[in-house]
Amino acid sequence: MQENSNNERKIRVGMVLFPNLTQLDLTGPHEVLSFPPPIEVDLLWHRLEPVTSISGFVLTPTATFDDYDAPDVLFIPGGPGQLQAMDDEKLIAFVKRAGESAEFITSVCTGSLVLAAAGLLIGKRATSHWSVVDQLALMGAEPVRERVVEDGNIITGAGVTAGIDFALTLVARLISEDVAKNIQLGIEYDPDPPFNSGSIETADPDRVELQKERGADLAEKRRTAAERIGRERLGLKL
Amino acid sequence: MQENSNNERKIRVGMVLFPNLTQLDLTGPHEVLSFPPPIEVDLLWHRLEPVTSISGFVLTPTATFDDYDAPDVLFIPGGPGQLQAMDDEKLIAFVKRAGESAEFITSVCTGSLVLAAAGLLIGKRATSHWSVVDQLALMGAEPVRERVVEDGNIITGAGVTAGIDFALTLVARLISEDVAKNIQLGIEYDPDPPFNSGSIETADPDRVELQKERGADLAEKRRTAAERIGRERLGLKL
Repeated sequence: MQENSNNERKIRVGMVLFPNLTQLDLTGPHEVLSFPPPIEVDLLWHRLEPVTSISGFVLTPTATFDDYDAPDVLFIPGGPGQLQAMDDEKLIAFVKRAGESAEFITSVCTGSLVLAAAGLLIGKRATSHWSVVDQLALMGAEPVRERVVEDGNIITGAGVTAGIDFALTLVARLISEDVAKNIQLGIEYDPDPPFNSGSIETADPDRVELQKERGADLAEKRRTAAERIGRERLGLKL
Repeated sequence: MQENSNNERKIRVGMVLFPNLTQLDLTGPHEVLSFPPPIEVDLLWHRLEPVTSISGFVLTPTATFDDYDAPDVLFIPGGPGQLQAMDDEKLIAFVKRAGESAEFITSVCTGSLVLAAAGLLIGKRATSHWSVVDQLALMGAEPVRERVVEDGNIITGAGVTAGIDFALTLVARLISEDVAKNIQLGIEYDPDPPFNSGSIETADPDRVELQKERGADLAEKRRTAAERIGRERLGLKL
């Protein structure tokens, strides 16, 4: 934590960007974490040039991996580009370095696979998007199918929209439940999905199968990468 | 609707930007609407230079009001900057023009006050953030305190996070419930807020009062502007 001129604690959140991330994984938590004044959120990438999400949304970095001091909170979003991020040596080196000193190590969606690829989840309970959560085991983590999973200073959220639930949980840990509840009221987070198709337990089984089929290629690439990283980089014997 | 080279219907969503908007009002719907291939989402502003949200998040326009053809879906986010947007003559002229031909006229949070300021909600049922929903009446709309409100081709969402519920509803109308349910599963939208403080009905009454007090200055400025616009621009006798 740094202190500002009023001697208030300043909490620095470093959010890692990469091309083809899922922007809502990041923008949900960004909004929640931007409410309390003591928190300062940065978007981090190799360079300051814009990074484009899988949906074509442009994200503008505020700092580079080289120029950013260790964050109090390390955050990694998910998205298809996580596959490349797991093998981005400099990005992984930053995640390792930041993870060593961070007060909280966090992710949403497939971002947990990047944390795992940096060796930060070995022996830890963690979650991810429902389609890949089991792959965490290939890099030494214990997969848990819950919306938000806490294990010591590691807090991981499930797929995409779990980022809002995750971020409110994080604010309660970082500051207080009182502040988290104020934010929840401010963003009118009283969700009321028009359909009941948001989890593999409640969605039509045919729909789940179809989505697995459509995502099979990417899932297989992710699995192959996770196995290789677990074996070669992390030296795991699974 | 435009047709592309495969003769598929292409649905164009135009999202209006302005400084000091609330980014999650827009990024939630943007993610949901970016899933189905026939939808193309643009971010619109006077110029192509970046626009900064109230939380310091940088949004990059993809087209200007002058250069963008009439959208199939007009969308307006909310945020404190909505006060200035209501009196931005060129922005309001675009909203009016786009509203005349759009298949759907939509907003999230205080974005409905901008729709109302353009005269698009006269006699229509609409919602907004809980703190300002009553002000819609000053510009001729009928305020409704529901998460997502539909009145003909007008679909409005309540505060910030209601944008996700809103966007799934919109996809069901634009394409099909089937596609909306696929998206809900893809973004794992099975919300589980860690606290029960997301509406004025469930939050601690003291918390609601405190938040009203903190927002009183802005609420008063909004009310004054809405009264003036209702009387002078829209010629309403209330």
